[in-house]
Amino acid sequence: MGLAENQLSFDLVEEWITKHPSASICTSEGVQMFRDIAIFQDYHGLTEFRNAVARFMGKVRGGRVSFDPARIVLAGGATGASELITFCLADPGDAFLVPTPYYPAFDRDLKWRTGIQLIPVICESSNNFKITKEALEEAFQNAQKSSIKVKGVIIANPSNPLGTTVERETQITLVNFINEKQIHLVCDEIYSATIFSRPNFISIAEIIEEVECNRDLIHIIYSLSKDMGFPGFRVGIVYSYNDAVVNCGRKMSSFGLVSSQTQHFLASMLSDDEFVDDFLKTSSMRLAKRHQTFTSGLEEVGIKCLNSNAGLFCWMDLRALLKEPTFEAEMVLWRLIIHKVKLNVSPGFSFHCVEPGWFRVCFANMDDATLEIALKRIRIFIQATVKKSDVPAKKSKQWQKNLRLSFSGGSRCEYEESLKSPSVMSPHSPMSPAQLVQTRT
Amino acid sequence: MGLAENQLSFDLVEEWITKHPSASICTSEGVQMFRDIAIFQDYHGLTEFRNAVARFMGKVRGGRVSFDPARIVLAGGATGASELITFCLADPGDAFLVPTPYYPAFDRDLKWRTGIQLIPVICESSNNFKITKEALEEAFQNAQKSSIKVKGVIIANPSNPLGTTVERETQITLVNFINEKQIHLVCDEIYSATIFSRPNFISIAEIIEEVECNRDLIHIIYSLSKDMGFPGFRVGIVYSYNDAVVNCGRKMSSFGLVSSQTQHFLASMLSDDEFVDDFLKTSSMRLAKRHQTFTSGLEEVGIKCLNSNAGLFCWMDLRALLKEPTFEAEMVLWRLIIHKVKLNVSPGFSFHCVEPGWFRVCFANMDDATLEIALKRIRIFIQATVKKSDVPAKKSKQWQKNLRLSFSGGSRCEYEESLKSPSVMSPHSPMSPAQLVQTRT
Repeated sequence: MGLAENQLSFDLVEEWITKHPSASICTSEGVQMFRDIAIFQDYHGLTEFRNAVARFMGKVRGGRVSFDPARIVLAGGATGASELITFCLADPGDAFLVPTPYYPAFDRDLKWRTGIQLIPVICESSNNFKITKEALEEAFQNAQKSSIKVKGVIIANPSNPLGTTVERETQITLVNFINEKQIHLVCDEIYSATIFSRPNFISIAEIIEEVECNRDLIHIIYSLSKDMGFPGFRVGIVYSYNDAVVNCGRKMSSFGLVSSQTQHFLASMLSDDEFVDDFLKTSSMRLAKRHQTFTSGLEEVGIKCLNSNAGLFCWMDLRALLKEPTFEAEMVLWRLIIHKVKLNVSPGFSFHCVEPGWFRVCFANMDDATLEIALKRIRIFIQATVKKSDVPAKKSKQWQKNLRLSFSGGSRCEYEESLKSPSVMSPHSPMSPAQLVQTRT
Repeated sequence: MGLAENQLSFDLVEEWITKHPSASICTSEGVQMFRDIAIFQDYHGLTEFRNAVARFMGKVRGGRVSFDPARIVLAGGATGASELITFCLADPGDAFLVPTPYYPAFDRDLKWRTGIQLIPVICESSNNFKITKEALEEAFQNAQKSSIKVKGVIIANPSNPLGTTVERETQITLVNFINEKQIHLVCDEIYSATIFSRPNFISIAEIIEEVECNRDLIHIIYSLSKDMGFPGFRVGIVYSYNDAVVNCGRKMSSFGLVSSQTQHFLASMLSDDEFVDDFLKTSSMRLAKRHQTFTSGLEEVGIKCLNSNAGLFCWMDLRALLKEPTFEAEMVLWRLIIHKVKLNVSPGFSFHCVEPGWFRVCFANMDDATLEIALKRIRIFIQATVKKSDVPAKKSKQWQKNLRLSFSGGSRCEYEESLKSPSVMSPHSPMSPAQLVQTRT
C-alpha cells in the first residue's frame, strides 16, 4: 500500500491493444513502420505523439483549455521531466519553495544533480494543509535573509500525498505571488486524471486564462505514469509557456527521450477519442468506488483520513495512536505497521509533514480482494489495540487518546536507509512493489 | 551522409518481428504481459533484458569475454549513459582527457549539465591519429599546470569519426596510464558490432583480463543505437567494474530509464541466439560491402579515406582541396559540399581535429541506389573542379594541388549555429536526418 499506482482500469487498455494490432510496430500488422520508428531520434518527438498528448491533456482538464503540441517537451518519466525543468530554471545554489507535505523523491530528483535547494512552505492540518500567502511569504523572506536566491515555487496539483486538488483561490494566490516576485511556478499535474469526486480539477492552464501574469513564468509537469498507470513506459512531459524553456528543455530531451516504440504505440492509443473518453470516465468511477470502500472501511475502526477528491492514496490521520506527538513515535508506529500489521505505508515525515502521525496509504495498486485483506489486517490491529485498553472503538473514540503505543526501538534512520536502496528510489513512490508488504500474497 | 546510422540489416529485424508476435506486449499474443510490463519501474531493469544485453555484449566481442548482468546500468540512450557516468565520476570543474578527433556532441552531453571540462589529447594524421602516451601525458601535465583536476580519459573504440578500432598496444598504454595516475577510463564501445574487416575489435573488457590494473577505474558505455540501428529506442548502458558506480548510476537511471515496453521486446529479440548470430554476421558483411563500394567509388576520383575497419562512416581526406590549410578554408569547402554538391557531411573541426581538411561521411543510412547518387554527385563535383584546371583526375593527382577552392564567404560560426538547432542536437550525429541533403529524394 506504499506504491501510488493505478491498476484499476488496465482491462480497458488490454482490450484496446488486442483490437489494434497495427498500433504496435512489432506485429505483422505494424512491422512496415518498424524501420522508421526504430531510427527516429528527433528530440521534438513524433508529431502524432505530441499531438495526442496535447489533446489528452486537454481532455483530462474537461476540454476547458487546450495545449499547443509545439510546447510539449519530452523527458524520461516525471522524474526526468522534474529534473529537466529544474536544470532549465535554476543554477546550483538557487532554491525553489515547496509546500509541505510533498513527494519525498523531490529531494533526490530536483536537487541531486542540479545542485539546487528546496525550501519547505509550511502547511498544517488546521486548515487542511492549504497553501497560504503568509506561508509562502515567510519561506521567501527566510530564504532572502539567508541570501538564497529563490527561483520559483513547485506545487503538485492534485497533491501527493494529500489527494486533494489545489482550489482556485489558492492557485490565484500562487500566481499573484510568483508574478509579484517574478519567480517561476512549476505545477506538477501528473495526477490530474485521478479526480474522483468534487470539486473538479482546475489546471494552472485555466487559472492563467483568468489571472493576468507573465506566462513565461508558468510550467507544467506531466506524465502517463499515474493517470494511465504506465510508469514503466517512462513518459515525462514538460509543458512550458516560456519559449526559451521549451527550446532549452528540448535539447535536454537527449538525456531521457521517450522510446519511439512507446511514442508510436501511445500516439495510436491516445488518438482514439472513444477509448480515451471511456478510459477517463471509467477510471474516475473506479477510483471513486475504491476510495469509498477504503475510507469507509477505515472509518469503521475509527480511522479518519483527510477529505480528498483525487489521487491514488489517502492521507491517514493516526495522530491519536502516537505515544507522544513526535516523529520518533511516528517511526515506532510506522515500524509496527510494516513489521506487525504487514502493510506498506509511508510515514508523514518522509513527505516533510510538520505534524507527526500522518501516513500515506495507496489503494489503487491492488485488486478488490487484496484491499479487503488490507482492511482486515487494519481492523484486527485496531481491535487488538482497543481490547488492550478495554475501550470499545465503536462506542467511544476515547481509545485513541488512551492507546498511545508503547513499542520500543526504531528510528528515523531506518526509513531513511530504506529510501537509499535502489529499488526504493522509484519515481513518485518511496517504496518499490518488490519491497515489504505485499498483501496480495 | 551526415548521420551515423545503420540501416543495412533491418530486413532481418522485420522478419524476426513478424515471426515473434508474443515478443510484443501489444499484440493479442503478448497482451497478458501488458499489465506487469507497463507498471514495471525497477531501476535495475527487467532481469531478462539485462541478461540478454550482457549476453549480446559478449557475443559482439566474439565470446572472448563475458559480462555480469548485475553490472549493467540502464540509461536514456548513449547520450544519457555518457552523462550518467560523468555525473558519477566527476564534480563540476573536473576534467576528462579526450583524444581527438572526437564525437562533437561529447561537448554537450558530457559538459552541459555536469559542469565538467573536456581536455583534448592531440592525435595527428602522421600516425593515423593514434593515441600516444606522450600526447596523454602532455594533456595531463597541462591540466595540472592549470590546476585542473583530471578525473579520467574517455575514448571511443571503435572511433567516431575515424572508423578505426583502438589497437591492443594503445589500449594497454591507456590502461597503464590511467592506472598510474589513478584516474578513470571510460570506453565508449557503442560501435563495437560495426567491425567489417581486420583487425578484430578488442574491448577494454579483454585488455583488463591481461593487464593488471585497478578495475574500479574501468567503465564501458554501450547502446543499441548503432550496433542494432535502434536510436529511437533510447537504450543506453553503463557497464562498470566499480561497485560504487554501479550503485550510484542505478539510482540515476530514474532520470532516463529504458521504456519497459522496449526492454521487453528487445529482451526477447536479443535472447534469440540464432537471430543474433545471423544479424551480427550479416550486418558485418553488408557493412564491409558498403564500405568497399563507397571507398572505391571515392578512390576513382582520387579521394582517399583513412584506412578503417569499423563504423558507419569514412574519414575522408580532402586536404588537397583546401585553398589554404586553415579551418576557414575547411568551412568554405564544407559549405560548398552542403549547398552545391548537396551532400550532408561533417567537417573535421567539429570533431576537434587539429588538421583542416578532414570530413566524416556516413554510408550506412541509405540504400544502394542512394549511395550511387551520392557517389555520382561527388564524381561530377570533382570532375567539374578538375576540368577547370584541365588536369584530368585519373591521369594525375596533381589536380589536388592545383585546385584549391576559391569559394568565398562562410565561417565556422555557420556550422556552430547549425549545431544549436534542436533537430541537430541528436545523439552521435551533428546533423538530423530531416536536415539538409537527403540524397534519397
